Amino acid sequence: MTLPMTLDDLPTPCLVLDLGRLRRNLAAMQAAVDRHPGLVMRPHLKTAKSIEVAKLASPDFGPVTVSTLAEARYFAEAGWHDQIYAVGIVPAKLDAVAALNAAGADIKVITDDLEVARAIAAHPGPVRALIEVDVGEGRGGIPPEDPALTEIGAALGARLAGVLSHSGHSYNGRSPEEMAAIAEVERAGIVVAAERLRAAGLAVPIVSLGSSPTALYARRMDGVTDVRAGVYMFGDLFQAQLGTHAVGDIALTVLASVIGRSAARNTLLLDAGALALSKDRSTQAAPRDYGFGLVLDRHGAPLPGEPNIARAYQEHGEVRSEQPLPMLPLGARLRVAPNHCCLTAAAHDRYHVVDGGEEVLAVWGRVNGW
Amino acid sequence: MTLPMTLDDLPTPCLVLDLGRLRRNLAAMQAAVDRHPGLVMRPHLKTAKSIEVAKLASPDFGPVTVSTLAEARYFAEAGWHDQIYAVGIVPAKLDAVAALNAAGADIKVITDDLEVARAIAAHPGPVRALIEVDVGEGRGGIPPEDPALTEIGAALGARLAGVLSHSGHSYNGRSPEEMAAIAEVERAGIVVAAERLRAAGLAVPIVSLGSSPTALYARRMDGVTDVRAGVYMFGDLFQAQLGTHAVGDIALTVLASVIGRSAARNTLLLDAGALALSKDRSTQAAPRDYGFGLVLDRHGAPLPGEPNIARAYQEHGEVRSEQPLPMLPLGARLRVAPNHCCLTAAAHDRYHVVDGGEEVLAVWGRVNGW
Repeated sequence: MTLPMTLDDLPTPCLVLDLGRLRRNLAAMQAAVDRHPGLVMRPHLKTAKSIEVAKLASPDFGPVTVSTLAEARYFAEAGWHDQIYAVGIVPAKLDAVAALNAAGADIKVITDDLEVARAIAAHPGPVRALIEVDVGEGRGGIPPEDPALTEIGAALGARLAGVLSHSGHSYNGRSPEEMAAIAEVERAGIVVAAERLRAAGLAVPIVSLGSSPTALYARRMDGVTDVRAGVYMFGDLFQAQLGTHAVGDIALTVLASVIGRSAARNTLLLDAGALALSKDRSTQAAPRDYGFGLVLDRHGAPLPGEPNIARAYQEHGEVRSEQPLPMLPLGARLRVAPNHCCLTAAAHDRYHVVDGGEEVLAVWGRVNGW
Repeated sequence: MTLPMTLDDLPTPCLVLDLGRLRRNLAAMQAAVDRHPGLVMRPHLKTAKSIEVAKLASPDFGPVTVSTLAEARYFAEAGWHDQIYAVGIVPAKLDAVAALNAAGADIKVITDDLEVARAIAAHPGPVRALIEVDVGEGRGGIPPEDPALTEIGAALGARLAGVLSHSGHSYNGRSPEEMAAIAEVERAGIVVAAERLRAAGLAVPIVSLGSSPTALYARRMDGVTDVRAGVYMFGDLFQAQLGTHAVGDIALTVLASVIGRSAARNTLLLDAGALALSKDRSTQAAPRDYGFGLVLDRHGAPLPGEPNIARAYQEHGEVRSEQPLPMLPLGARLRVAPNHCCLTAAAHDRYHVVDGGEEVLAVWGRVNGW
């Protein structure tokens, strides 16, 4: 497919990324980070997985975060050398990291395990690690006060790069005040961990925390060197429910064609189903349940009655509304805003970039898989 | 990566496909279809999306079913010419179908819409269509007795290839008797539709119905020419809950590494999360809720207490159990049986084929996207 093209030229279903909204989301986050002098933004590229998006989020090839070896390789080869690979490492993956580092990258892994720390220290290739600290989410990491912290630090020795936490439970916050409170618990915890390691005579250059709500709402960041966030770039319905942005700021949508209609059932069928949207139901427990996504017009603007995708089959999305739906002709195009942009984006291999209008300005790739 | 290799050589997370189980599932379905003399199996390739699997499911390049244009192209180029593309067509997709047909394929589209039928009839390239008939699912299609049926048939004229139904609501059946009853409603309905069209002077060569439960449990198939099913090839936890096969027949699993452990929380973390497993929660409303998947040992055998994936983050799967979990070393490998094999498979671009053991016998590709 060659440019110029418009929304009508795109095969459906496919991703549409609004450049203006993306830029505004990036600027809003940068402003939030800039409230804290000296704090470095380390964007998490697991959402976008795209060099072109990374060029906007980290234009000077600054520090970034990744979630797979495939991302680490893709972004290292494209020039982002300072990476944290922020999923607990296992020994079998160290060779791949060390090979990328030997070729010029500086990919830091994370661990919360003494045996793995010893494997990292003993690895012949260049690889450093951060210790994963649990600040209340209860997923990975060890508590800041855990005696194992300094043992792991000592095992890593010169290969200790810092400490890292993730406050995924900030997504349970329902107001800026609640999210700010969770952020302060995270900050205090990760700083305690860093200070304990320093008191044991270890260097702790990186003190990294993050999640989009933490990054936006934290009131203090003293003792923290960098903050990680990813979902803010695109936004989604769940984030909008949290209040971190408005529905109108969601930059990523799925373009779909109407493939069925039933006035009797008051339904439309779209060719965007479970594979194109994902089966993420993040908004199920939120104040407003959008099913499998909010249906918008072809320009990404709201429709009367706010119809949503009530049922998602493999390739069919069934649109329902409490108001009578327009019985659009088959082939008419609509957009669907996702519950969870990370998962919806991962179903696709490219972005079609628009800027509020019909014209497709660019096609940007993604790196999927592991 | 080159063969020979074993499960230990595979980067995790990845798909493992057990050849023996796949062959047994295919044979069981063929036996069910062979109960009905003259009935043709038209396997749905939307689950496997793989030439190598299709060679086993349809070894003589017989009739198949697909769900995307990408599948249609991939399988047509590999030699499966007799296809039904079983998702409602829109005019913008007709050129692509007609181009494949002009190159030797015979891809039949489906519609339930008069305007689309006219567009099909008027298309300059070779393309035929089946009329989609609703036999109770209430998704797409028109009821067998709807006056529009013969109008659409007349509009298609010589391009009418037949009628098609899908009884997705057979998945609501909870016993062979219930599924057989739904199958008989489907059969009776689709035959009524075919007879009405024939009474109007139209040729209806194909009378196609299907779903895995229908294909397995239907007691009569008179008047039906072919039956479609796909999920039976791999099986999954939801199908096992329906009773269409045993958990031990599930041929598709995700191989994962232990990346975290907490005796205090009684959890393990795997590197198979929402992206590697999908967020499908099909078993949520089933008698047994497996979370985001059932955790098995590295050979695919059950573990004490039947631990499952209770929480799925983008790259983390949190294993929980009502019994104490073994605190396996990080890097240990486990397998996860999926809730819904179609969605889990779609997160990956290849299968690693084993036959009950450690050795990887082959790597088979998939066609994802649209």
